[in-house]
This record gives sequence, structure tokens and C-alpha cells, in this order.
Amino acid sequence: MQLTPGRWGDPAHPVDLPTAAVDALKHLGVRRTDAEPVEPVDRPGLTADQLSFLSQVVGNDHVASDLESRWAHTRGYSTTDLLRDRAGDTSDMPDAVVYPASHDEVQDLLAGCAEQDLAVVPYSGGTSVVGGLAPSRRFVTVDLRRLDQLVELDEVSRTATLQAGVRGPAAEALLAERGYTLGHFPQSYEGASIGGYAAARSSGQSSAGYGRFDQMVVGVTLATPRGTIELGRAPMSAAGPDLRQLVLGSEGAFGIITSVVVRIRPRPTERHFEGWRFESFDTGLAAVRRLAQDGPLPTVLRLSDEVETAVNLADPDVLGGGSGGVLAIIGFDGPYNQATADVLAAAGGTNLGVEPGELWRVGRYRAPYLRDPLLDEGALVETLETAAFWSRIPALKAAVTEALVGALGATPPLVLCHISHVYETGASLYFTVICAQSDDPIEQWRTAKRAANQAIADAGGTISHHHGVGTDHRDAYATEIGPLAVETLRAVKQTLDPDNVLNPGILIPED
Amino acid sequence: MQLTPGRWGDPAHPVDLPTAAVDALKHLGVRRTDAEPVEPVDRPGLTADQLSFLSQVVGNDHVASDLESRWAHTRGYSTTDLLRDRAGDTSDMPDAVVYPASHDEVQDLLAGCAEQDLAVVPYSGGTSVVGGLAPSRRFVTVDLRRLDQLVELDEVSRTATLQAGVRGPAAEALLAERGYTLGHFPQSYEGASIGGYAAARSSGQSSAGYGRFDQMVVGVTLATPRGTIELGRAPMSAAGPDLRQLVLGSEGAFGIITSVVVRIRPRPTERHFEGWRFESFDTGLAAVRRLAQDGPLPTVLRLSDEVETAVNLADPDVLGGGSGGVLAIIGFDGPYNQATADVLAAAGGTNLGVEPGELWRVGRYRAPYLRDPLLDEGALVETLETAAFWSRIPALKAAVTEALVGALGATPPLVLCHISHVYETGASLYFTVICAQSDDPIEQWRTAKRAANQAIADAGGTISHHHGVGTDHRDAYATEIGPLAVETLRAVKQTLDPDNVLNPGILIPED
Repeated sequence: MQLTPGRWGDPAHPVDLPTAAVDALKHLGVRRTDAEPVEPVDRPGLTADQLSFLSQVVGNDHVASDLESRWAHTRGYSTTDLLRDRAGDTSDMPDAVVYPASHDEVQDLLAGCAEQDLAVVPYSGGTSVVGGLAPSRRFVTVDLRRLDQLVELDEVSRTATLQAGVRGPAAEALLAERGYTLGHFPQSYEGASIGGYAAARSSGQSSAGYGRFDQMVVGVTLATPRGTIELGRAPMSAAGPDLRQLVLGSEGAFGIITSVVVRIRPRPTERHFEGWRFESFDTGLAAVRRLAQDGPLPTVLRLSDEVETAVNLADPDVLGGGSGGVLAIIGFDGPYNQATADVLAAAGGTNLGVEPGELWRVGRYRAPYLRDPLLDEGALVETLETAAFWSRIPALKAAVTEALVGALGATPPLVLCHISHVYETGASLYFTVICAQSDDPIEQWRTAKRAANQAIADAGGTISHHHGVGTDHRDAYATEIGPLAVETLRAVKQTLDPDNVLNPGILIPED
Repeated sequence: MQLTPGRWGDPAHPVDLPTAAVDALKHLGVRRTDAEPVEPVDRPGLTADQLSFLSQVVGNDHVASDLESRWAHTRGYSTTDLLRDRAGDTSDMPDAVVYPASHDEVQDLLAGCAEQDLAVVPYSGGTSVVGGLAPSRRFVTVDLRRLDQLVELDEVSRTATLQAGVRGPAAEALLAERGYTLGHFPQSYEGASIGGYAAARSSGQSSAGYGRFDQMVVGVTLATPRGTIELGRAPMSAAGPDLRQLVLGSEGAFGIITSVVVRIRPRPTERHFEGWRFESFDTGLAAVRRLAQDGPLPTVLRLSDEVETAVNLADPDVLGGGSGGVLAIIGFDGPYNQATADVLAAAGGTNLGVEPGELWRVGRYRAPYLRDPLLDEGALVETLETAAFWSRIPALKAAVTEALVGALGATPPLVLCHISHVYETGASLYFTVICAQSDDPIEQWRTAKRAANQAIADAGGTISHHHGVGTDHRDAYATEIGPLAVETLRAVKQTLDPDNVLNPGILIPED
């Protein structure tokens, strides 16, 4: 799938809002504005020398400086990104897009960009929702889509070497030919690619079974302006710090990941999804914690809170003709595991059968599509997420909700929440916020987000469980790890990227 | 257990070699030398100003500059360390030992040591076998034994905050009072402590069930000369690189770990150990790989090769009256899992019952004790280990064995090998080497070790799966990660320890 600016998903398959949803928005005070998108206006690009350098490295046919190509690579897919797209805001637009075909071409680009006074933004799927593609100075986008090969599949070790530009579905297709799966299905799956998963520490909807992407990576190759780093001679090692984990999450600030070696698994021959009802989020929380700590974990494990359950279920009868309660979804890659169901039942859950599970499965990538028509209708809709240790989860959830409601008081919001990633010691919390747009929806959201960030910090959560840092979370991230850790990151960057060519202003606050 | 210089283990409980073993050594050409250990001779210590600074920080009673204390903190427990201990070699002896009682005291020591021109070696259990306590200049040892508290136990999150100086058995005792276990049982268990486990990426004998120590750590506090870093607000995060994994394995070169937050589990109420026989190491390898990749994994999973099986089993009847074959040990914390046994049986294994399992359990910390009487008898005995992806394991094992046999040709060695840590994508290999000592056993071993290191590098293994880098592996480590990664580590060290106070010469080659 090739994403288009300003709208998520395949333009050939737009998603319409149900009439009931449009009606429901009216209760939030949402009013359609019918503003037409503003067309972007071009601005000066690169010098002839700069274009010549880029062409020398990747070939004439693989440098694009036309408006359409550049606009298509402008920023990511946060709601403020979409609003700025609609406003024709070109301030984050790259000056050119280059399409290298190999690690060596990436390496040559990085080695030469400083001399050409070019900053570089690595571009994998372009699906950042945290300002990860918006550097602090003019730049060339390095689109990695031509690095699209399955380089090696080691069936004995169950590892695959995948180039950074392989999109999620392409990776699955390449592995499926050999009977394997990666098992990484983030909501950005259709658009994002391997390099981005690695650079941003992605986590997918099957994380309970397959783990996070950073747990799948056993090897990584990084091109930097100073040369190449190759890491990973064994699954685990006591040979010093795990430098793979310094590259994972570096968001293009230390180098461009050109390939990774990932753990793969046999492709399951059956899958099962089903819904469970709990009386309240608290009882559901106790149940999913029990599974996370004592098992057996399913492959997919999700728990919506009361508000999300009510909003998402068009048909409340799914909850067993019930009044209230919350919905959990479990999924198995492979045989159904009765022991998992027994734990949920013992914790007070009611099995709702396959229907809600299948509903979730079919719509699992659909949420971001819905945002576009919601914005069209005049709603402000955005998501944010965090993670913490189990004992902090209830207070963290309450604090973030309260902060959002407080900050958006003039346009009372719906705040939906779910848990979708669990660990023995903690879990993620994922929030969706819907309210009426104010006159300045970008500033409206930024204010709300600042309040949420502060609430996360105060309640002991991390600023991101799987969206990453980008520019949106940069300051909160610096506060989270502290000034000495920030200095450490700067020292790493200074070593690998002494001219600040790579993603300037992303991840690490500039001096 | 307090270790003593020159001999492993509790001096009140020495281990004698079986007579049969002494006889067997003769076949290797081993001859007892009856050389008496040389007493260490004192050398000048610190200036009055330096001692005064140390006393100011930790109090007079917690600074030791007497010979006995210093000698007791001299180097670790590699065979070359033991041989140098026996030779009375004081070249690695600290100039003083200090015993801080808190994070703040550690922090104050580090902040002041540069001005006092003192290097610092953090000392946890002192069980390094890779030269991890032997810096390149004169130094003060910071013994962390007074940081011995269980600071917090969060039963909801199943995490425990443990100070760095808590020894393995003490940690288990503290957790057992509350019904929990850490599940970390390395061979150094009786002597090593929490801070060392973290700093050196330890892995224990129950790693198949509990994971490595670096997988247990969810939070870490690091004192550095520049200040304190605290990491870990959630089990996992997408907020930048995982800096915990930069601290874990830093071996005291970046700072002193003063406490960690670790994942804990309910203490099992039953345990089961049993032995299995396979026709050959290759068939056993296929079986343990099957368990590692498709499960269900036991808590303990070990596979000895033919030589190790023959040497370790005093009674070959344990193998079912068999001729040849190899021994595997499996163990369960909790109920016996028949499904695990079924996988082993399907892979050609024969269940030998509980006797060999119990023999292993009872003797599980005994191997290092045996080294002392072996050295007394004139044998050279040492271990080394590596890890790699599964597809490389057979060639890696053959290459290391061949390198050791080749390098020790004048004193033909026995080379024993086992697998004791498995992952979906690979495993560790642990070698034990026994031969007659030459006239210069230290140089004899160093030559053999260089050959083994080269073989590991050539065959695609990592230089250490769980022993660490120290000084012994420093150059091999630098080659493994490459010059740019070494520069990156240096930049991190320069940021946190600009005066090179911490463990100079350990982990990272000095400029």
C-alpha cells in the first residue's frame, strides 16, 4: 500500500463513517466545516551541485525533486500532521527524495551529505505519528523502498535477513513462501516497513505471542556518516552492552538501518479469535495480568475500557445482551488453548465466542482509516500511548484521562482506553480522544497532549510504549531519562554523525 | 560465602578429587609439582590525603588498606588468576578497599576520585573469570557488600528492587520470605552478587525457564563520576534506545550499578530433575533445538557432548548400561511437564530417570571447587564459552576444539563441551579444557585461549555468552563489534567518566 498525504490508507478503499457515528458526534458538539484542503505551494529546492551529488550516488532515475514526490514524503500521520497537510503546510517538505538500492548507496549518501550541507531523513513507510520525519533543517528524504529483499533465510536458526525497505505485508509474503511468519502486525502494518519497525521499536497486535519488534531482532546493520556498524553474532551475548538495543529506537538519529536479522517462526495453519466480557475494566485488568504473569498467554490479548467498549461496539448485544461491561479480545496463532480460557473464566470473564473476535480481526487495521472521515466531519481525533509497571496502571490511566478531559474542557472529549501489550511486570495503555475541533485544532491538540505528557511523567509511565519519540515526545523523553543520559545519547550521535546530518532535532534535543 | 584468594569456594568445605580422577590425570601426563604457594609481599599504598578522602566519604571503619583485605580483593577466579595468586603476584592488588553503605556514598566516591587521582574498581562478588578486576593503573576497590537490602517488593508488578551488593543466596532468601524467587543460579551463585550479575550480563543454570539476568532487569540505577542515571519506567518502551541495555554489560566502565529492579516469580513448591541419553551430541543438539524453538522448554536444559559425558559420569551405568552416548539434564521449577519429555523421546532420547538429574542438581556449583585440587595435582584446567546461531553451532564447536587441541599439542588436552543456554535462534557452547601444566602454565593457557578466541571469531560466534569481556576478551570484543562501535563506547565512557576513573582498561581498549 502506498500512502497518500493527508489521508491514511489506500485511497482506492476509503472508509465511510456509519450514520450512527455521525449522529453521535453531534452530541460532542462536532460541526462539519467543509473546508477544502489547501494545495501545497512549491518552494525552492536544492542547488545543482547537490542534485548532481545525489544523482551520482543513486542514479538520475532515483532522485525526485518534483513537488508531488516531495509532498508525498512530507511528515507522517499524526492528527496534527494531517491537519497541516490539509492546510497545505510545506514547512516540513523535503527538498528531494532519493531512492538508494543498496546498503553501499545509503552509506555513500551519508558519507557525502555533510560536505553537501544536506540533512537526511530516513523514510521507511512514512507512518510516524510522533513527528519522526520533521527535522529542524532542510533535508533530503532517503526512501528505502528499493531495499526490498529477503536476503537470507536460515531455517536451522529460524532467522531471516530482511532489508529495511520491505513493507510488513511484503515481509510476510516473502516468508510465507517458505512456510514462516515474522508475526509483527502493528496498526501501521500495511504501510510501515522493516527499517521503521526497528528504528522506532514498533510493537504489533500479536505482541503477547510474538513479542515486540525489538525482541525479534537478533542482528542489525547500520550505515552512518562515519561508516558501517554490524551487530549480532548470537541471540544473546555477554560481550559488553547490547549495542543492538542502542540502534533499535535510535529513530534515524545515529544512522540508517539498512537490514536486520529477525527471528522467524513457522506460519500457523490455524487461527482463533474470540471475545470475552468482564464486568469492569478493573476485573478485566486483573484477568489479563494473571495471564501475563502466570500464563498461558494467547497470541493476541486486548482489553478495552468501558468507554472504548461502548463506542466501538455498534451492537451492544455482542456483550451478551448486557448492560455495560468491557470487551477483551484473545487470539491464538495455532490451536485454541483451553487453559487460557480457563484463566479468564476463573477471573470472572464470560466467553462471547468468535463473533467479536472476528469483528476485531477483520477491522484490526481500520481505526486509522476512520480518522479521516472523522476529521472531515469536524471532529478532533487522536491517539496516545504509554506503558508502566502493573501497580501503576490504574492511577496512570486515571491521571491521563483526567488531564485530557481537563485540557479539552471547552470541547468535552470522549477518552477511550485499551491495553494491547502485556508483560510479566507491566502493560501498555492506549488512549483515543474524540472531541469537537476548536478554531485552532492543532493548538487544541498540542495543549491536550502537553497535559497528557505531564500526567504520564507524574504517574510514572514512559512517554511511549510503541509510537516512539520523534519531535513530539522529544522534551518529555529528555525529562524521562534525565540530562546525563541525554548527554550520553548526544555523545553517541556526535561520534557517528559529527555533522548532524541525520534526522536533526529528532529524538535528541539539540544543544 | 566469602571467597578466599587462590582457591574457589568455602575454605571450610574443600573438595577432594576422587582417586579415579587422579589416576586418570596420569594418562594426560599430569605430574604433581608440590610447589608451595608464594606469600604476597606488600607494596606501598595510598597517600594520607587519599586515605583521608576515602574515610571522609565512607567513614574510618569502612576503609581497609591492610595487606590481608587488599589481597582478598585481588583479581578474580580465572585459572591464570589462581596461578598468579599462588605465585604471590600482587601486581593487580588494590591499594585500598572501601565499603560504602549507600548509593550516595558510591556517588560521592566517584565524584571525588578524579581529583584524588584514584581509579576505582567496583567489586560485587569478585568472581570474574575474565580479568574484570584488573585495571591498567593503581586503584581502590569499591566493595558493595554493605548495599545488601531488598529495598522494595512490588507484588502486583512482580518486581523487586535489590541493592547491588546482595549475594545470590541472600537475594533468594530475602525473596523467599515473601514467597518469591529471582531464579538466577549461575555457577558463581554462592559468591557473586546482584550488581555483578547486571554489570557482566550473567546467565544462570535455569536460564531456559527464567531467562538471563539482563532479561530480568527492568530498572537500573547507575552512579557515575558525572552524576546518577535512573532508567526503567516500564517493562519495555519505545522512548528511544533501551539504555538499560547499555548499562547492563558495561562492567563498571560507565559507572557503578547501585541497585536494580528485577522481575520476580512465585517460588516453586516442587522441582524435578532428570537425565536423558542421546546417541550422540548431534542427535541431542537436534532435540534441544526442537525444545528451544517449539517448546515446551523446561527450566533447566543442558546437553553434554561425548567427552564431557564420559569424564563427568564416574559410573557409566547411569547411561543405561550403555556404551557411549551423551547425557542431557532437564529440570522443572514447578510440575513435571510430560510434553517436554515427549519432545525429547520423539527426538530419540531415552529417559534415564531422576538419578542423573539429582546428581547434577547436588553438584551444580561444584565444578569450580574441583579446579583447585586439579591444579594441585599439576593439571591445567580452565573453561571458556561462546554463543552463536544454531546453524553455526556444529562448526563452531569443532573449530574451538580443534584450536585448543592444536595450541596445546605438547600436552594433549581433554576438551569437554556442553550446551546450557538455549534461545529460539541459537545457543551457548561451554568448553572445559584439562591437560598437563607446562613449565609456564599461564603462558600455556594464554596461547590456547588466543587460538580459541580466533576460532570463535572465524566461526561466527560471540566472544562471550555469559562470562563477559574484562581484560581477557577486550581485544577480541573490539574486533567483534568493530572500530566504530568501539569509538561509540569510548564516547559514552568519556561522557560519564571523563577522567577514566572507572575500571580503566576493562571492557574498552584504551586509546
